[in-house]
Amino acid sequence: MIIYGIPTQRNLRLENVFEKVKEIINYVRGRGDEALIELTKKFDKVSIDSVVLDIDQLKRCCRDLDQAITKSINKVFSFLWRFHEKTLPRNMVFEIDGVILGYIWRSVESVGVYVPGGRKSYPSSLMMCGIPAKVAGVEKLYVASPPLLNGCVNPAVAYISLELGVEEVYRVGGAQAIAALAYGTETVKKVAKIVGPGNIYVQAAKFLVQDVVSIDGVEGPTELVVVADESADPHLVALDMMSQAEHGVEALVVLLTTSNDLANKVSQILGNDKDHVYYITTVKSIDEAIELVNKLAPEHLSLHISSYEKYIDKVVNVGAISIKNEAPALIDYIGPNHVLPTNSWAKSRGALSVYDFLKPISIVMNSSSIDRELLDSVISLARYEGFEIHSRSIGVRYGYRHGD
Amino acid sequence: MIIYGIPTQRNLRLENVFEKVKEIINYVRGRGDEALIELTKKFDKVSIDSVVLDIDQLKRCCRDLDQAITKSINKVFSFLWRFHEKTLPRNMVFEIDGVILGYIWRSVESVGVYVPGGRKSYPSSLMMCGIPAKVAGVEKLYVASPPLLNGCVNPAVAYISLELGVEEVYRVGGAQAIAALAYGTETVKKVAKIVGPGNIYVQAAKFLVQDVVSIDGVEGPTELVVVADESADPHLVALDMMSQAEHGVEALVVLLTTSNDLANKVSQILGNDKDHVYYITTVKSIDEAIELVNKLAPEHLSLHISSYEKYIDKVVNVGAISIKNEAPALIDYIGPNHVLPTNSWAKSRGALSVYDFLKPISIVMNSSSIDRELLDSVISLARYEGFEIHSRSIGVRYGYRHGD
Repeated sequence: MIIYGIPTQRNLRLENVFEKVKEIINYVRGRGDEALIELTKKFDKVSIDSVVLDIDQLKRCCRDLDQAITKSINKVFSFLWRFHEKTLPRNMVFEIDGVILGYIWRSVESVGVYVPGGRKSYPSSLMMCGIPAKVAGVEKLYVASPPLLNGCVNPAVAYISLELGVEEVYRVGGAQAIAALAYGTETVKKVAKIVGPGNIYVQAAKFLVQDVVSIDGVEGPTELVVVADESADPHLVALDMMSQAEHGVEALVVLLTTSNDLANKVSQILGNDKDHVYYITTVKSIDEAIELVNKLAPEHLSLHISSYEKYIDKVVNVGAISIKNEAPALIDYIGPNHVLPTNSWAKSRGALSVYDFLKPISIVMNSSSIDRELLDSVISLARYEGFEIHSRSIGVRYGYRHGD
Repeated sequence: MIIYGIPTQRNLRLENVFEKVKEIINYVRGRGDEALIELTKKFDKVSIDSVVLDIDQLKRCCRDLDQAITKSINKVFSFLWRFHEKTLPRNMVFEIDGVILGYIWRSVESVGVYVPGGRKSYPSSLMMCGIPAKVAGVEKLYVASPPLLNGCVNPAVAYISLELGVEEVYRVGGAQAIAALAYGTETVKKVAKIVGPGNIYVQAAKFLVQDVVSIDGVEGPTELVVVADESADPHLVALDMMSQAEHGVEALVVLLTTSNDLANKVSQILGNDKDHVYYITTVKSIDEAIELVNKLAPEHLSLHISSYEKYIDKVVNVGAISIKNEAPALIDYIGPNHVLPTNSWAKSRGALSVYDFLKPISIVMNSSSIDRELLDSVISLARYEGFEIHSRSIGVRYGYRHGD
């Protein structure tokens, strides 16, 4: 279905499921593994007798994985690993005005990756979350994903978990998996940060456990805005829009174009697709289109325009950009990341990266040659704020007596 | 008061004030500026007729600021600005296996800084939040801080706001200020991210508005662990502990030392301070002390040991480190930041930095020379995940026909 117009900003409305999710969280907090096993029977229709899959079990789970898929995973895994390695920050310790100070980077203590799954599974998401985490140096990585009928997680998820060197995999999904990672159970380890995509129950659970654990943000259904001019190929534009719609009926797919002709042609191609909604709008200029993009702050932006170099600096609020000759779908596999902000979160957040698994620690040292005027300013500011002992503890190191 | 032992991990227990804070948030959402004016009368005992302070009003507010303080602020401001400039990341766009991809950094769209205040105010906090934000390129910066009796915010806060080039200052404090920044009112602009310290009501409000706005985290009362060996000066150790206790009775102050003699001497000095609690514990080795530090994950760590180089790599979970000859209090003014994780959040978060005001946008382009094996792997992985149109939209760009 085609809608001629611009969609309004979307809200995940997590609060619609808060009550149900709170119940699940409390149940897991109260009854631990027993609750996980019971809820897995209830929601996933799978009977498991334990939650943890150890290394031997994981090896068995990926025994039947097609060799061609293993090879594909290895290729993509290596590509992403090399990319993330290149983005690692160095420690930043400088001397300024005689003070030696800066940040030293340390990795997040422990991370739980949620991988949606069951019959349809997304091993690529595990690479998107797990690889930057491991490259950032996270020592303790855990994975949670719903079980198949045979008690395994998806074979590709099992295989990637082994490649990542995770500590353990938990065969449990939904809000109950998030509760287990946030609070721990008899067998599930409590982690410092939870990341990964998932349905509204998973996202609501992530939102609700933020009092005890960090999260990467809450992610909703995928979003794509295509900005196109008369140079665009209508078939390619339509294909990109359909590929994003492939994620499900909730996907938001928008075309903003300066060309009436293109709008008509794309509309003709997409008109046959009764399963999805596509928004198409003509705009006066590419500048107007970019302005709309920055307001909407979509997850994906695809630029089908002849001179993208002129406009890319004006793009501020999006999760990912693909340029004309690249498919937005490419970002889903070789990213650099497909874990991206949706629902206007691109105004304040970006793609998942090694920076989500690193923390800068403030450090100050060896400042014996500190600029005296700076030192006096610090002391005077501390006193202005009423921190007399602060000022004394600083001054005494430089021979200032109390009262100086 | 001295307690011989190790404190247990602390929890902010924001939920204790959730009900009260939710009431305030809903009141502000419903009645806007009227609610802000009414709540300011109620909580701050100040009558204001409007919420916004414009540039002219700010100039009047800092007219009486002591010239020596202005000079001190300028000095510290310039120091912090130069530091943060050095830490800015560059865009990271690389060619790997023939694919050109990476991150381009964009700043957060708009930021609201909360500055605690009233009679006792902390202009240093505004520098700690506002300077990295502006250096990161945030265009729209807003400040909220409670008013004085004359309707101004603290004069130093007004002065720094002008130096930062903020858009507006809102003379409103507490949970009501956070609600206003998160949802907007007739005169208060809705922002994309809220940062800054504040009391438990402010932090609970920040926690509760995370469904519509990003936050820097929730910060609690300050924490310091001093790790010291026999080489430490007991007077300096005690002074550092007292300076941290100066923040209030809720400050957590701990000494871990390998020296019984030092423990006794520090205990003697601090024994006279009846207003604060100090924890003192002897440990077998510095390694044991560092292990305890990583478990406790305190805001500040001060190393009063002879060979810190040997141990610094083992320190993982802290917000800030000061080495022997530097006071932890120095971090409060020339940081690089004193907005730091407390309550064990140092396991997953670091110091506030330019990275809190920047977002990496994923970008893919010009990959015509993509390694064919990688391309085939991506296509095979997309198909394995059931994304047929994804694979087609990628392959068609490289001459693959549907079914290839």
